[in-house]
Amino acid sequence: MIDLCLLGTGGMMPLPERWLSALLVRSQRDVVLVDCGEGTQVSWRYSNWNFRDVGTIALTHLHADHVAGIAGVLFMIAHSNRSEDLTIFGPPGTYQVVQALTIVVPRLPFTVRIVELEGGETHTLPDGLELSTLKVDHRIPCLAYRFTRHRAPKFDAERARALDIPITLWGTLQSGSSVDVDGQTFSPDQVLGPPRSGLSVGFVTDTRVTSDIPNFVRDAELLICEGTYGDPELRERAEKRGHMVFDQAATIAREANARRLILTHFSPAMLDPDNYLHHAQAIFRHSSIGQAHQTITLSFRDE
Amino acid sequence: MIDLCLLGTGGMMPLPERWLSALLVRSQRDVVLVDCGEGTQVSWRYSNWNFRDVGTIALTHLHADHVAGIAGVLFMIAHSNRSEDLTIFGPPGTYQVVQALTIVVPRLPFTVRIVELEGGETHTLPDGLELSTLKVDHRIPCLAYRFTRHRAPKFDAERARALDIPITLWGTLQSGSSVDVDGQTFSPDQVLGPPRSGLSVGFVTDTRVTSDIPNFVRDAELLICEGTYGDPELRERAEKRGHMVFDQAATIAREANARRLILTHFSPAMLDPDNYLHHAQAIFRHSSIGQAHQTITLSFRDE
Repeated sequence: MIDLCLLGTGGMMPLPERWLSALLVRSQRDVVLVDCGEGTQVSWRYSNWNFRDVGTIALTHLHADHVAGIAGVLFMIAHSNRSEDLTIFGPPGTYQVVQALTIVVPRLPFTVRIVELEGGETHTLPDGLELSTLKVDHRIPCLAYRFTRHRAPKFDAERARALDIPITLWGTLQSGSSVDVDGQTFSPDQVLGPPRSGLSVGFVTDTRVTSDIPNFVRDAELLICEGTYGDPELRERAEKRGHMVFDQAATIAREANARRLILTHFSPAMLDPDNYLHHAQAIFRHSSIGQAHQTITLSFRDE
Repeated sequence: MIDLCLLGTGGMMPLPERWLSALLVRSQRDVVLVDCGEGTQVSWRYSNWNFRDVGTIALTHLHADHVAGIAGVLFMIAHSNRSEDLTIFGPPGTYQVVQALTIVVPRLPFTVRIVELEGGETHTLPDGLELSTLKVDHRIPCLAYRFTRHRAPKFDAERARALDIPITLWGTLQSGSSVDVDGQTFSPDQVLGPPRSGLSVGFVTDTRVTSDIPNFVRDAELLICEGTYGDPELRERAEKRGHMVFDQAATIAREANARRLILTHFSPAMLDPDNYLHHAQAIFRHSSIGQAHQTITLSFRDE
């Protein structure tokens, strides 16, 4: 299962009624904050997510509207009594920018590890959530993120019983290791069903359309994708500035065979993104406009 | 005349319903922002003050809740098409902190001049508003500010006419310079009335009570002063952390012979400062609780 909370949907600058685009992702005990513009700590307080739980911050890129709130968020995490390490992923330059911005929070009660990524990496977080990256195409280095909860094959209890494997060893087999019973070795494939698809969510913002994106978010249960402009006539402006219009995001969702698309990162000039939603829905029916503090729970298909 | 807009009233961290303490001050064409925590640019948008007009930012000290929003505010000022220089005043260390925080707004279309102050200085802004500072007593170097609009003595037109001074020279005399008329010199004191008191506002936050503060804000039309805690029983905690309780702020207002006191910089733990206002009013009747986006116009007494 993956829980999500969209903290905001704005691009460029925070507005009274529109927090900057940022996302909370939780799967088991892995909790990730994706992007962190000014005001993210305030928007966060409208949710019921605990600052303490965040072990990972993933930055798409180093423009102010995606990173300027990092000092405030680290300060809040510190005040929530977290003492465990925290990892910040981001594109090249992240170390320098985070070091600079956190000059006003000099003492944190936990270690911050900063990992700069080029795109193309996969990291597994402590509780198994997989984070992978793709280099996308903005005006400065920028990453798209995909979060995946893999799913173990189903354990066939009937076969395990038929093979006389003690129940205390089932967990070992389920986690993929062989076991010995009275000199006889049993391997996982003897008691596990076929592979099962996991669950994933893509977060793609501040990029032009690139040919890699659909593959990167292929079969995602949810794609959260920027639509800086709604009006398809602004495509040229969007491309010039390293962004997309709604129908381009919808085309990615369709090509990727995503199950659902949520649009985000709206230009301050677009007062009501709903007015343009039909441009996305004409291409990909399951498109919607992101709402601040919207929470989404993604479950495995047959649960 | 001095116009003010209180952008927020919170200390320590911005909250959904309480922006961080910051103040806009305007007198003629001098516009000053005092303090700039995270979210100041958002709170600012609830007012009708133009970002473009701000030529001075005055920082009390370099804790995150007073400075972390500086990149966002400079970004907004840049987007408002300001091209004139901007001056940032602050305590020692301001240069380093502002340089660090503005790493995410690398290109500004105006020159930013940073002036570090120890306290005790007086600067006159381009349109005549006087800014003076006092070193106060927090956990790190901190400044209180006083803004004064001085007032020229009244021009005595009758006397000027009696002396046969051409009307075209009245302005020169009024601004304090002598004039020559047909070889005869007239000095300002011949046509000006007695000195008139100016108009001033004090902004005092993040400090313990010090013996200098009442003198620094003497006879201020308005004192905006921190009251981090309302409950007088928290005085010891306040002093330990470099703050004040309401009745201490009220005592300063009374000793200073201020005309009016507005309390600000409330602890996040104090949900309703109004509950404690009577502690201030018992000492200084004209005390009130600061409200976000409250605007105040101070006028010369006999205008």
